[in-house]
Amino acid sequence: MKIGIVGGTGYTGAELLRLLATHPEADVQVITSRSECGKAVSELYPGLRGVMDIPFTEPDNEVLSRCDLVFFATPNGIAMQSVPTLLDKGVKVIDLAADFRLSNPADWQQWYGVDHACPQLLDEAVYGLPEMNRDAIRQARLVANPGCYPTATQLGLLPLVQNDLVEGSVIVDAKSGVSGAGRGAKVASLMCEVSESFKAYGVAGHRHLPEIRQGLSRMSARFNGELVFVPHLTPMIRGIHATAYATVKDHSVDLQSLYEQTYENEPFVDVMPAGSLPETRSVRACNQCRIAVYRPQGGDTVVILSVIDNLVKGAAGQAVQNMNIMFGLDEKTGLDVPAIMP
Amino acid sequence: MKIGIVGGTGYTGAELLRLLATHPEADVQVITSRSECGKAVSELYPGLRGVMDIPFTEPDNEVLSRCDLVFFATPNGIAMQSVPTLLDKGVKVIDLAADFRLSNPADWQQWYGVDHACPQLLDEAVYGLPEMNRDAIRQARLVANPGCYPTATQLGLLPLVQNDLVEGSVIVDAKSGVSGAGRGAKVASLMCEVSESFKAYGVAGHRHLPEIRQGLSRMSARFNGELVFVPHLTPMIRGIHATAYATVKDHSVDLQSLYEQTYENEPFVDVMPAGSLPETRSVRACNQCRIAVYRPQGGDTVVILSVIDNLVKGAAGQAVQNMNIMFGLDEKTGLDVPAIMP
Amino acid sequence: MKIGIVGGTGYTGAELLRLLATHPEADVQVITSRSECGKAVSELYPGLRGVMDIPFTEPDNEVLSRCDLVFFATPNGIAMQSVPTLLDKGVKVIDLAADFRLSNPADWQQWYGVDHACPQLLDEAVYGLPEMNRDAIRQARLVANPGCYPTATQLGLLPLVQNDLVEGSVIVDAKSGVSGAGRGAKVASLMCEVSESFKAYGVAGHRHLPEIRQGLSRMSARFNGELVFVPHLTPMIRGIHATAYATVKDHSVDLQSLYEQTYENEPFVDVMPAGSLPETRSVRACNQCRIAVYRPQGGDTVVILSVIDNLVKGAAGQAVQNMNIMFGLDEKTGLDVPAIMP
Amino acid sequence: MKIGIVGGTGYTGAELLRLLATHPEADVQVITSRSECGKAVSELYPGLRGVMDIPFTEPDNEVLSRCDLVFFATPNGIAMQSVPTLLDKGVKVIDLAADFRLSNPADWQQWYGVDHACPQLLDEAVYGLPEMNRDAIRQARLVANPGCYPTATQLGLLPLVQNDLVEGSVIVDAKSGVSGAGRGAKVASLMCEVSESFKAYGVAGHRHLPEIRQGLSRMSARFNGELVFVPHLTPMIRGIHATAYATVKDHSVDLQSLYEQTYENEPFVDVMPAGSLPETRSVRACNQCRIAVYRPQGGDTVVILSVIDNLVKGAAGQAVQNMNIMFGLDEKTGLDVPAIMP
Repeated sequence: MKIGIVGGTGYTGAELLRLLATHPEADVQVITSRSECGKAVSELYPGLRGVMDIPFTEPDNEVLSRCDLVFFATPNGIAMQSVPTLLDKGVKVIDLAADFRLSNPADWQQWYGVDHACPQLLDEAVYGLPEMNRDAIRQARLVANPGCYPTATQLGLLPLVQNDLVEGSVIVDAKSGVSGAGRGAKVASLMCEVSESFKAYGVAGHRHLPEIRQGLSRMSARFNGELVFVPHLTPMIRGIHATAYATVKDHSVDLQSLYEQTYENEPFVDVMPAGSLPETRSVRACNQCRIAVYRPQGGDTVVILSVIDNLVKGAAGQAVQNMNIMFGLDEKTGLDVPAIMP
Repeated sequence: MKIGIVGGTGYTGAELLRLLATHPEADVQVITSRSECGKAVSELYPGLRGVMDIPFTEPDNEVLSRCDLVFFATPNGIAMQSVPTLLDKGVKVIDLAADFRLSNPADWQQWYGVDHACPQLLDEAVYGLPEMNRDAIRQARLVANPGCYPTATQLGLLPLVQNDLVEGSVIVDAKSGVSGAGRGAKVASLMCEVSESFKAYGVAGHRHLPEIRQGLSRMSARFNGELVFVPHLTPMIRGIHATAYATVKDHSVDLQSLYEQTYENEPFVDVMPAGSLPETRSVRACNQCRIAVYRPQGGDTVVILSVIDNLVKGAAGQAVQNMNIMFGLDEKTGLDVPAIMP
Repeated sequence: MKIGIVGGTGYTGAELLRLLATHPEADVQVITSRSECGKAVSELYPGLRGVMDIPFTEPDNEVLSRCDLVFFATPNGIAMQSVPTLLDKGVKVIDLAADFRLSNPADWQQWYGVDHACPQLLDEAVYGLPEMNRDAIRQARLVANPGCYPTATQLGLLPLVQNDLVEGSVIVDAKSGVSGAGRGAKVASLMCEVSESFKAYGVAGHRHLPEIRQGLSRMSARFNGELVFVPHLTPMIRGIHATAYATVKDHSVDLQSLYEQTYENEPFVDVMPAGSLPETRSVRACNQCRIAVYRPQGGDTVVILSVIDNLVKGAAGQAVQNMNIMFGLDEKTGLDVPAIMP
Repeated sequence: MKIGIVGGTGYTGAELLRLLATHPEADVQVITSRSECGKAVSELYPGLRGVMDIPFTEPDNEVLSRCDLVFFATPNGIAMQSVPTLLDKGVKVIDLAADFRLSNPADWQQWYGVDHACPQLLDEAVYGLPEMNRDAIRQARLVANPGCYPTATQLGLLPLVQNDLVEGSVIVDAKSGVSGAGRGAKVASLMCEVSESFKAYGVAGHRHLPEIRQGLSRMSARFNGELVFVPHLTPMIRGIHATAYATVKDHSVDLQSLYEQTYENEPFVDVMPAGSLPETRSVRACNQCRIAVYRPQGGDTVVILSVIDNLVKGAAGQAVQNMNIMFGLDEKTGLDVPAIMP
């Protein structure tokens, strides 16, 4: 399978390279970067030396159109410029940015501040959360890979919302490692600014809020859309921990069983035994989402703990999972590895 | 002022030593430790070399009774063994452990698993949160220094609860650095276990839950006691970030003003400007609690962000603040320093 | 290939499990631990959930003797108790501890403080540094897997020493992440003790000193044995960076070429281009050793920078590499993966 | 004392603000920054809220000339533009950058790549290492505050070099926390790039090399100038650990006594007891330099371990110490605090 990657210099692109390097069916033929053009990927990421040494090239739709699949690991708003052309040439596309996640172009406009370049593709684009949309992904030409927070959150809430067990608003208190902020040269991402400190951000409104709300609404028409989402920055490189709080008045449901049954056949969702405390390191560098369910003190509030590696299940790993589905491969191909501990 | 410290080998004790070393009125005469008896405190904590070099001694009530004030920086359940004796001899006591925090002995029994050794003192003991109990602290012989999570949480919620603005249950999603787990030799506190990872713990019930619930109930008889408290471990040494969620149906209240007015004269509570994002490092090694208030998307849910240094305002600093109040000193004595940034 | 692991609860054991879990030829049938007997390995290390779930069992030579190969990931001095029995039964052994590294039993006695339990095996045991001893490893029944510091140091110095280019004493200033200190419950390994701090240790004499000296002496009879080795603890989980200083009076040698030629065919030693600065993260979770060579200011002192992951090339990865050699497999089997970056 | 600070937005400037905020004699009247002009310092550094809230202003020599002392916490090459003017107006100056450290203008030109703007001041400028130059500092109008690595290194080597005990070349293997790289928005300083990794840099030649060489040459005319200096980046915010290796053939000298006597009356150099292992955290946020001396295995090589906080004794703290000396204050004023541990 001939693969192209547009925008491979960020952490998401680097993680894609790492995963594809050992994927038995993937042959990365093109990787583009305007800023690092001509340099070998292994010069930028020495961890790839001897494993993947191809050079970054200028983005070129002509070259990309010879691929079977192109991943976009670009900033928001870039993929939408090239996707129509590539689709026309028969290339499949997985966009790891937000360009095709929100199906309503007005939502895109509101949260990203510019008009959408190809709103006509929004209906066709499949939201690439395999646990919700596996069949559609299998048929898709264009997959919008979910955001990191939305992945952890939706997998954590899906069994509750799908079964209409939630009353009132849902609160999601999420914590992310700093790789989620990308590889941009920003003071706010310096080690001296974020290490040994913890803070919330985006409290007034984060771009992943409409994505999560859209996802929950698709799980059940009865979801009322009330969602409070507060992301936090935690001083580590990788990992997301979403702690979700929902009111569930029906005490007769065995939530542990509900979760276990829902995800029984999912290769990348692990419902841990009752009483477990999922750590983000238990999914470091692997594509798992691990979940634990609590009803503290037997009250009405259910607490869902959900962890992923933001660069893997929250980005590049899920993209490879989607690729596997789109091309009829075993979904676990190239992803079936344990986490790195310690 | 002659000071004794019982149990000075943990992080709380070490922080007390650091703060008292530069306190102009405090003269630390005794510091006890069974395990390090005979060793200089500066041998265990070389950061104190040349500043405080007295040796650890065996605990001895006779010697301690010559002090004006004794701090207990011991594990839970130790202070209660000696406090009656010391009070009888006219010594004032500040306990940094939980022994005198819960006024109902049944609560102690339930959450700490043993009978209380001196339940007769629970009514007299003053809960040492100056922002709630300053006058009582001024008169107290025995002060129960609040827990770290309860300090951050109660200061964050006090203006809301005191003014009966909360409806329904309160959710507190709290995050702590690992110094909160103490200096015990536990696998779970090893750097290789907690660094680069994030997890919840105590979801089913944490000992600080009844302490917070008791505090909120004292702020208003109308608080219904419904509280969900989920602590998390975050990979840094110092700092607590409490994110509290409460439903406030009355949209006419200007919460920013309410908070600013409530804490107008408090030297150690800083209500930040609207839109601020308090970082735990902004209070590192200092006694401040910084707070920000949000009503995301104009909804019914209010989000309160509250940060402290768990070893300072959450333990040793607040203890020194209480000492200052008990002995008629300026409350800021020895505590009026900026945070360490970066 | 039937594999047994004795002592699988430490970080070295966990890393062995991680690597063997994806090794196509390895079938881990037994993993022993007295302390965790009966518990699934994935309960202790949730990162293995769904990938390796066998339980820890009591150590039992009878059971172990049914394996083709047994790894000892035990504290120093344990393997020597069982190895003779296992060898007698035809089982091959790789010891990841120090028991068989020093060929002179007096050295063992001096540095480890007890008599050696089977000195008769010391001559037979092969020191498992493939870059030095590949042929002997291929024939070996018993391989002593090198220490982490000795691996980084010897690979860094081999081309110089082997070619008798060194004059006078060699200085090795080495830095290790804290996983090298193991998973024992020690105050000195707590996050609050080692994070955000840096220190030397073992300056007066570290157990890896005689191992390195023995290795250098084997590279050349003309090595005079003068070696200063100072290890340091650096606040990260994985990685060793050895900085070696040697006096090389002969300015005619092109050191860069010498290094590149020496390691030309080595799958796990990467001589980086001149001017490179190897980072430990470029080998995180992979079996590479990356090396750079400098002669600062054109002086007599050569500076060698050498990095490995202490748990992989410095322990479990090298053990798997040795296993591959001993059993005639492609040496890279199960080890051919890129580093985890970021 | 009226104080001005030019360039207060970096970490060195922030640390100056923190130290001066509690200094009883210092009154910071001006703090300049082109980029943050108009913003309160406490907005950029919330840890200063309520303690120091003055605004950044445009640099203006007229305003600065009303100060008694101006600190330059600017990038290299900036101070030299304004210092002559300020000195003419009777203002004393402490430059925390490198502009006046090298007394030979050719050295400046070689290492910093531009001509020096006021070479006529280089002879007058006093190198502000109080342990070497206290008397000259007392008389100085212009003090060149030493670099961080040079401070740790020179204090570590001074007793040896001053007493002509060193033979041959000196090797300094130094490790710094990342705050030494400043607050610039560089990819190389991102948490995801430097956390959990360790690397050398500047091996071919670092700007602190000529500064250290000049310092050692001033300690003894017999120092031959042979110096190998390899700095490393260690994943923590604050702290420098210099490990120096020197050949000392005279075994009759009691080095421990020599060091203790040399620094007997120094308030900020702490020679630790024999066998100590100085940790950088033992000097975190304080102005101490702690030193330990070893002669491993009784050989000819002496190993000196020397730790400082790069932002305090390695920058702002030493600048305040110099200020105290220049203005006839007790040298410890405002600096007499313990380290922050943990």
